Amino acid sequence: MIEGHGDDIYGRDIEIKSNFSTNIFCKRNIGLEAHLQSKIGLIYNYPAPDAKQLREKIAKKEGLGYDSVLVTSGVVEAIYLIAKAFNGHSAILSPTFSEYEDACRIYNHEVSHFHDLNDISSEASTIWICNPNNPDGRFFPNEEIERLLTENNKRIVVMDQAYEDYTEDESFPTEMITKYPNAIILKSITKKFALPGLRIGYLVAAAKVADVIRKNMMPWSVNSLAIEAAAYCLDKESEFKIDSSFLRSEIDRLKLRLADLGISSSQSRTNFLLCSLPKGSARELKEYLINNYGILIRDASNFSGLTARHFRVAALTPEENDNLINAIKSWL
Amino acid sequence: MIEGHGDDIYGRDIEIKSNFSTNIFCKRNIGLEAHLQSKIGLIYNYPAPDAKQLREKIAKKEGLGYDSVLVTSGVVEAIYLIAKAFNGHSAILSPTFSEYEDACRIYNHEVSHFHDLNDISSEASTIWICNPNNPDGRFFPNEEIERLLTENNKRIVVMDQAYEDYTEDESFPTEMITKYPNAIILKSITKKFALPGLRIGYLVAAAKVADVIRKNMMPWSVNSLAIEAAAYCLDKESEFKIDSSFLRSEIDRLKLRLADLGISSSQSRTNFLLCSLPKGSARELKEYLINNYGILIRDASNFSGLTARHFRVAALTPEENDNLINAIKSWL
Repeated sequence: MIEGHGDDIYGRDIEIKSNFSTNIFCKRNIGLEAHLQSKIGLIYNYPAPDAKQLREKIAKKEGLGYDSVLVTSGVVEAIYLIAKAFNGHSAILSPTFSEYEDACRIYNHEVSHFHDLNDISSEASTIWICNPNNPDGRFFPNEEIERLLTENNKRIVVMDQAYEDYTEDESFPTEMITKYPNAIILKSITKKFALPGLRIGYLVAAAKVADVIRKNMMPWSVNSLAIEAAAYCLDKESEFKIDSSFLRSEIDRLKLRLADLGISSSQSRTNFLLCSLPKGSARELKEYLINNYGILIRDASNFSGLTARHFRVAALTPEENDNLINAIKSWL
Repeated sequence: MIEGHGDDIYGRDIEIKSNFSTNIFCKRNIGLEAHLQSKIGLIYNYPAPDAKQLREKIAKKEGLGYDSVLVTSGVVEAIYLIAKAFNGHSAILSPTFSEYEDACRIYNHEVSHFHDLNDISSEASTIWICNPNNPDGRFFPNEEIERLLTENNKRIVVMDQAYEDYTEDESFPTEMITKYPNAIILKSITKKFALPGLRIGYLVAAAKVADVIRKNMMPWSVNSLAIEAAAYCLDKESEFKIDSSFLRSEIDRLKLRLADLGISSSQSRTNFLLCSLPKGSARELKEYLINNYGILIRDASNFSGLTARHFRVAALTPEENDNLINAIKSWL
């Protein structure tokens, strides 16, 4: 999908003061900007075609073999590569990030949707879940994931863990790919370090599975500055902590304030909420908030299975969250 | 192909003093580094999913409709998208850049090779040429291209013009896509402005053809800094002139000096030469030059149809070119 994603600030002349449409939030004080400025000459060097040195670094960090790691241009490239490599029938946990279905359709998969892990089509050859899930923040704990992988051990199970750092819950460990060779885990460096302008992510899978995917990869999909940024951030990972308990308390507060306005919201375990308006449309609310408050929210009506009433907001600072509530109140 | 491309400096600890394996050469004094340093905060903003503003800028510069331009992560992404969109039988001018064939094989094309425009398989549904061609610098003038497009008006003809700025010959004009709706022209911003570390290119084609390709695109394949760099360079294009007549005279001189050593080379119209050793292998020569002179050449033995004796060199400065000749002489 090209049009219709959130974070669509780029197309607007108006100044956005608070971007609730993002699902990325964190402090950024690990010296990355200065580092990249000092490395700007990298624009004159070809990157390694498969980001080799970064693959090695990630493999070491994850405690996995080099052949189990593939670096991609954001999680999105990984999604498209998987859809290319394993076509057939894809069952997708819904509502969710649209790119799973888009990639599957481009590669002519049959597509079905499920809302419950016990209700997956028996036709499925590949299962896709986002955990924590976008847009509702739903989270499946490790024992449920292990059950999913065991019960579907003849199917590929793709788990997008892009938002794992935005929850207090323990994310499914990558080393589990050695126990479950049907698992493919997607990780977003873009999200982890809040760098959406660079496009970088990776997947981990059993070497045999990764090798099938690797055969379809084009060279140089990740550029030199993105590789440099990722390597730098991974080295500084211990200094870069997302305050997920702060996000948790703000999301709980936001949820209560929204409920006061008659707006229901999802049981989110992460830093964003899927909300449903009691009346009117999310599209109208979005335009109103942009034009009157410089506030951007995510109209979620284009997520599969959702309606014109749905929107998504991230928790930002307490002050910004209060402004959001007041602005929505004035619209209602 | 992941392994085996040129410009493979990234994998070596040894210092490369002269990189003849590149096919990019030019001065870089248009202020891009300082500009990107000042825009480093773009790493915090999502790029437009299809690089919309850059598409608009390119369409304006080319005098074409917006719908005829697609921005891609280097020419390579365009190649893969075209192979996905138009599969069938691909006829490829050879020897050439390996990615055409690799992409076609990934998408299950039948593949044939041709060396002469009059000798293209009648089975072909898509024809691929690189013009000027890599690795031999061969160039087809506009009247031959028009004849190719006319004679194959039921076939897609893909023309990779990545090296067009490295020749004195007039490149095939993009506005011709309005006359020849079977043409797809690939342009490399990476090559034009000598920025291989960023990955950015574009394709132009009739809106109907571009639309078929666009349907397969993933969002955000080009990152924010690459988009910014491309926009900046295009604005400064008039200040950024590759001295192709200088390159021409150096390539002619290099060719003569190589001939003195018994090394034959291609009738190149651009800044690189495909060379053939009278004895020994290009792989051995490459290792010798790296270890003894810090000189990198392109072992061209892995181009389809070439042999262990083939290597490619670009013309660099007169002094570097002399060093290359002396180094090869000492090896022979």
